[in-house]
Amino acid sequence: MIHRLTLAALLLTSTAPALAQPAAPAPVDPRVATLRDAALRDDVAYDIVEGMTTEVGQRLAGTEAEARARTWSAAKLKALGFKNVRIETYRMPVWVRGEERGEIVAPFPQKLQLTALGNSGATPAAGIEAEVVVFPTYGDLVAAPAGSLAGKIAYVGNAMMKTQDGSSYGQEGIARRAGPAVAAGKGAVAIVIRSIGTDTHRLPHTGSTNFPAGAAPIPAAALSVPDGKLVEAMATRGKPIRMKLLLTPRQVGEQESGNVIAEVPGTDPDAGVVLIGGHLDSWDLATGAIDDASGVAITAAAAKRILDSGKRPRRTIRVVWFGAEEVGGFGGRDYAARHGSERHAIAAESDFGADRVWRFETTLPDTAKAVSDRLASALAPLGIVRGAGNAGDGSDIAPTIALGVAGVDLNQSGLDYFDTHHTPDDTLDRVDPEKLRQNVAAWTAMLAIVADAPEEIGPVVRPAR
Amino acid sequence: MIHRLTLAALLLTSTAPALAQPAAPAPVDPRVATLRDAALRDDVAYDIVEGMTTEVGQRLAGTEAEARARTWSAAKLKALGFKNVRIETYRMPVWVRGEERGEIVAPFPQKLQLTALGNSGATPAAGIEAEVVVFPTYGDLVAAPAGSLAGKIAYVGNAMMKTQDGSSYGQEGIARRAGPAVAAGKGAVAIVIRSIGTDTHRLPHTGSTNFPAGAAPIPAAALSVPDGKLVEAMATRGKPIRMKLLLTPRQVGEQESGNVIAEVPGTDPDAGVVLIGGHLDSWDLATGAIDDASGVAITAAAAKRILDSGKRPRRTIRVVWFGAEEVGGFGGRDYAARHGSERHAIAAESDFGADRVWRFETTLPDTAKAVSDRLASALAPLGIVRGAGNAGDGSDIAPTIALGVAGVDLNQSGLDYFDTHHTPDDTLDRVDPEKLRQNVAAWTAMLAIVADAPEEIGPVVRPAR
Repeated sequence: MIHRLTLAALLLTSTAPALAQPAAPAPVDPRVATLRDAALRDDVAYDIVEGMTTEVGQRLAGTEAEARARTWSAAKLKALGFKNVRIETYRMPVWVRGEERGEIVAPFPQKLQLTALGNSGATPAAGIEAEVVVFPTYGDLVAAPAGSLAGKIAYVGNAMMKTQDGSSYGQEGIARRAGPAVAAGKGAVAIVIRSIGTDTHRLPHTGSTNFPAGAAPIPAAALSVPDGKLVEAMATRGKPIRMKLLLTPRQVGEQESGNVIAEVPGTDPDAGVVLIGGHLDSWDLATGAIDDASGVAITAAAAKRILDSGKRPRRTIRVVWFGAEEVGGFGGRDYAARHGSERHAIAAESDFGADRVWRFETTLPDTAKAVSDRLASALAPLGIVRGAGNAGDGSDIAPTIALGVAGVDLNQSGLDYFDTHHTPDDTLDRVDPEKLRQNVAAWTAMLAIVADAPEEIGPVVRPAR
Repeated sequence: MIHRLTLAALLLTSTAPALAQPAAPAPVDPRVATLRDAALRDDVAYDIVEGMTTEVGQRLAGTEAEARARTWSAAKLKALGFKNVRIETYRMPVWVRGEERGEIVAPFPQKLQLTALGNSGATPAAGIEAEVVVFPTYGDLVAAPAGSLAGKIAYVGNAMMKTQDGSSYGQEGIARRAGPAVAAGKGAVAIVIRSIGTDTHRLPHTGSTNFPAGAAPIPAAALSVPDGKLVEAMATRGKPIRMKLLLTPRQVGEQESGNVIAEVPGTDPDAGVVLIGGHLDSWDLATGAIDDASGVAITAAAAKRILDSGKRPRRTIRVVWFGAEEVGGFGGRDYAARHGSERHAIAAESDFGADRVWRFETTLPDTAKAVSDRLASALAPLGIVRGAGNAGDGSDIAPTIALGVAGVDLNQSGLDYFDTHHTPDDTLDRVDPEKLRQNVAAWTAMLAIVADAPEEIGPVVRPAR
């Protein structure tokens, strides 16, 4: 492969009168480089992931397990030396999984590996049995005539591909997010989807779905990808497919959830908070190692490196381990409601697994463009390129970003993320310590630059309350 | 890397008076080469695997599902044009899975992914709860004092590594085969082992275990590898671990199983049968794509290529899809008991997945050494090397081999086999059509050579009955 800049130079040589010279990169502050490179030997992030997955495990939002996770997390953050460690609680509606079984009854009896989607309705205790209508895609389901699924179970496939930026999740995930409501609207008694995932293992991917207010939720489950393919292969035989489902999840009403907050206090309270973090809750099928113990661990480990650097940053770094992200972003909304009137310099979230950071994005104001240039120089040795400036990803920080706060994204590769996302496979085995360290190094460099930047960053956000 | 022959030649040059010349390889019969190379475009094997996994699925020995598999198989083999297609039945004891759940109750409550081992005993209907004694290896369990496990649940880890020849399965598999009986002998109320597997997915590996005659089986289950690691990580915290288990498998007595047999009739009934095949039954957790739909498919597809070649082979090729292999090799013993007095030239089995063949082995008599040389020449272009001559692998053919029949092994790579072996993941997704075709080509070449060899192969085996 010819390097892009080399090729550009060659083309310019042959067509332009003068040789183009790339602008010199911004110099890297030696202190930033030292902090960044030391972070490549970080053990704190892995220790947090190992501890949280071993000593807490799954921590579904609003459950006793998430409460245990908050207690564990506050103790951990205090032990790491953070200041102002506290838990801020709120209440939110909670759905819990029950029994879940599925099988093809005819024409080829086979048991299925499946799991209920969040907010799924329940079958009767004896289960339900019905004929299956197979839709290769969500679009095919949408195109089905009104009433055509009366008494039927809808099956919806997808064409989920691996994408580095995770864009296929947005495109194909609609089958999970909206498919159940669409199928219910056409009379279906239940729906099973092929998991929104890119793996080939018999481990289904859960995740939330939503029904319109007032509509009765139908039973909704995801088949593992191989089980989805099996149903599709059976459908090619042209014989009616009958499926039996037993799903007994239930809504258990409003329960307590909460955010865990810790700080590295800055020297200039007027310079704005640097808000970083990930989400503490997980789905209930696994220990949530990559979703999102890794994110809370990476951001806390990086903040600890600033904390331990011997020099207080200009801006306060606030680490937030948000609660109840998976089930609707309750923690992020509670944070914005409580803290949105404080000045925030930036908000940045790590919630896309534990793979390497490959790109950074910022939405810094023009007055702080030099900050972005310094980030580019400091992150380049980690193999991180500058993106087009579409920052602010992360459902926990979204309500804060929506208030006008600048975003900095450190994008992790999503190529393998949806192999594991929301499955029983989201365990410590999925975390590569070397990749985790590259993340910590990237976040450390980012914090060292942004928290100490002399430029003003971010408008003073004082929304009317 | 210096090629082994080159290195040998160099060494000989410097120390021997005359330059050593490698023996010229045996020429490859053009008909054999043509058949072999055409098989690299085979679709029959994949079609068999796809059909069996889609239209039958799991086919646990002695169950109604295995009976359906026999019916499906006989129809398939007839449709493929084989002669003398028949089913030979026998009876054997049957164990079936029930409910299975496990969790760590203390110090860190977490649910576990596990599955009962074949012949496991059952817990009471309410389950059992007990303290866990963690043994890193089977050797550590054996070393535990008599009576030391009274009232306890034993946990046994292992150090299963990937090996091309599958040798680690023999070494580490003893924890599954013998661990439960050993633990029971020391008073354990149950045992969980870390799966005998090389993957990192939350899918446990089942497989048979055995208890001494007259001993009451204790509940015995395999944790997925990540769950095993989790228990081991908890053990490092030094607090007592309490586990709850619910396992309700049961023995259902003697049931019918059977072998499905099909033939390519030879021209010389006195030259001995070429016995090939794999096993039809599977474990109950998956569709048995690699264990062993692939083996029955590869061998049948190769035999069909001889059948369709326009020239009857000298020797009859007998394809046997053995029943009840996984649970104790009942089909192989029934075959030997019925057919052991017939003359067999060789016996060869495919039961090690669907990866590429990398080595062949023979135990041909000296009178037929030229056959092995011709195999070496014909298989080399497929990337297959000649082994040291330790043939006769495969539990289905073992009782026939034990009668003095020659063996020919086409060894598949075992590097990834134990990622999937005996797990819910043994589905069509694990089968690479290109690798399957390489197998069919190897078996086709082997059959073209062995079935037509003018040499006498194998003693006339007429054991006293």
